[in-house]
Amino acid sequence: MSGITTRRQEMVREWLEEQGLDALLVSAEPNVRWLTGFAGEGLLVLDASGVSICTDSRYAIQARDEAPDAEVLADGGHLEQAIGRLNADGVGRFGFESAYLSYASHRKLCEGLDEAEPVPVEDKIKRLRAVKDEAEIALIEQAATIADRAFVALRPMLPGMCERDAAFELHRLMVKEGAEKPSFDIIVASGPNGAKPHACPCERRISEGDFIVIDWGAVVEGYCSDCTRTVIVGQPDGRQREIWEAVREAQLAAIAGVRPGAVCREVDEIARGLLRERGFDREFGHGLGHGVGLQVHELPVLSQRSEDAALEAGMVVTVEPGVYIEDWGGVRLEELVLVTQEGHRSLTAAPYDL
Amino acid sequence: MSGITTRRQEMVREWLEEQGLDALLVSAEPNVRWLTGFAGEGLLVLDASGVSICTDSRYAIQARDEAPDAEVLADGGHLEQAIGRLNADGVGRFGFESAYLSYASHRKLCEGLDEAEPVPVEDKIKRLRAVKDEAEIALIEQAATIADRAFVALRPMLPGMCERDAAFELHRLMVKEGAEKPSFDIIVASGPNGAKPHACPCERRISEGDFIVIDWGAVVEGYCSDCTRTVIVGQPDGRQREIWEAVREAQLAAIAGVRPGAVCREVDEIARGLLRERGFDREFGHGLGHGVGLQVHELPVLSQRSEDAALEAGMVVTVEPGVYIEDWGGVRLEELVLVTQEGHRSLTAAPYDL
Repeated sequence: MSGITTRRQEMVREWLEEQGLDALLVSAEPNVRWLTGFAGEGLLVLDASGVSICTDSRYAIQARDEAPDAEVLADGGHLEQAIGRLNADGVGRFGFESAYLSYASHRKLCEGLDEAEPVPVEDKIKRLRAVKDEAEIALIEQAATIADRAFVALRPMLPGMCERDAAFELHRLMVKEGAEKPSFDIIVASGPNGAKPHACPCERRISEGDFIVIDWGAVVEGYCSDCTRTVIVGQPDGRQREIWEAVREAQLAAIAGVRPGAVCREVDEIARGLLRERGFDREFGHGLGHGVGLQVHELPVLSQRSEDAALEAGMVVTVEPGVYIEDWGGVRLEELVLVTQEGHRSLTAAPYDL
Repeated sequence: MSGITTRRQEMVREWLEEQGLDALLVSAEPNVRWLTGFAGEGLLVLDASGVSICTDSRYAIQARDEAPDAEVLADGGHLEQAIGRLNADGVGRFGFESAYLSYASHRKLCEGLDEAEPVPVEDKIKRLRAVKDEAEIALIEQAATIADRAFVALRPMLPGMCERDAAFELHRLMVKEGAEKPSFDIIVASGPNGAKPHACPCERRISEGDFIVIDWGAVVEGYCSDCTRTVIVGQPDGRQREIWEAVREAQLAAIAGVRPGAVCREVDEIARGLLRERGFDREFGHGLGHGVGLQVHELPVLSQRSEDAALEAGMVVTVEPGVYIEDWGGVRLEELVLVTQEGHRSLTAAPYDL
């Protein structure tokens, strides 16, 4: 990791200089990992002289192994050690991640600092993380391939399984294929449960005529994949087919709109507009998609309310329109898409058979 | 849940009245769940007139199902809806959980409020959650029993397995016994890896003469268990036996000290003092234990730095001394203990055979 993390740290130092800041206190764990390789719990202080991981004895060896170039502090509270480091270094104005530092920790910080002045900053690192390098893309693709294979193996087993067993079998198959773990709690929502976009798998048995929404992903070396398919046991009725095809049409149109420069809100609107035309407007309540990387939900956000500007090459986003109808069920189809110089490339290959 | 959650909400209202507050904005998810039964993502506004869950369309049905007595708002940002609710209700001074609201969200809150005045408060609900009722204790015990059974089944399979496979097999066995999922990422740390208290299971194969630290737990209806054993493949050498017995002695002495009124720091010191006498002082770097409930790490904290006063009947705590030596390995033994009127009762029954 060393060369990569050094380059990432330099990007942040350049940004700090532009902002007139001496240092950055990093409190979001995925940001710490991205900057140093350290995947445990702790804070990071980054300044011109280097980086210090502020952790505790539970993670001391791991931090030294994973982040050989960082100073590892592991004797005291995380925040207390960060304050000590900032005081000792004679730091002046420094940034802290206002979205990840609690109100209480900010107070403690202010009380403990000698001269240093904390300045709230936007989540610059999360923004930098949105554009992936080749190694990151390869890991996400590997995670996606594992997830695809597991799904293909699960598909014929579904009839008669209960949701919870199906979710665990998918989990088991991903681990067998080489995943560290699932990238989130797997969703298997059958029949009316499909109306809940974030349903928890329950004891409900998957039966003839059920639509089943399956939303799953794998983790490989910390990097996530994310995918959803909606399948049926037996043959779809007219309404099922109509809704599934409406969602698929909206998804394909939105995927076709994924390219560098495409405005995030507009990509969402491609799918939303098509579903609106078909009468499904309020039935698609969530955003179209989100970035995926060290976290399963990252920047950019593709939604009506997205404050992110436009897609850039190297971003990895989901495209996942859905229609949810209470007491009936739901359909969601999710593709993991890499933004390329030319447009886009799908990272998932799980079949779309109904 | 309804009767229980109503009583819990009343406890919080009484406390708000004592504090001269009109309402509480709850942002910690386990606190929202404890107060309402809702287990999805969202914020909660609690005032004299009732409770409102501020979530989004992904969780709307779930919120109405799980928290039938709550108003469910699911059309907009979580914080924006909470601000709307506070403004509409003519709330004056209200508390927010300073440890769980980010600096940025606090700012947004201040900007959006008309008359209401946010006051940072300590985590009162986390404190209330520390004392469990009978139904909660029954669920924790059920989770612990599932974890015990899974471990007993795993034990003979360990020789020759790699750490990652052993961790997943333990996971599988817990799910088979009825767990929703593990209560955290299972630790299986063999040989020198045992020196890392929070090691990640890797491809290392468990071999003759290895100490293996296994730290695992189950979730049942949201409630966690937590347990650690250190076992060996083959026969321990003199040093292994000496260290294992030192840790076990420290653990037994500390468990014997668990009773209502026992000072949290002093229970930690019972184990720490005994290990210090044996020359293991710096080798026991973490705290002795922590509360367990809806989260695997709750109050009270049993450590040298604990700011919690004394144990109370109904608390469920871990007692988990350990000794960690770089390049050699580690030993940790963890018991899940209920504080009873009479003293304590163990909730875990996994054998302590070396």
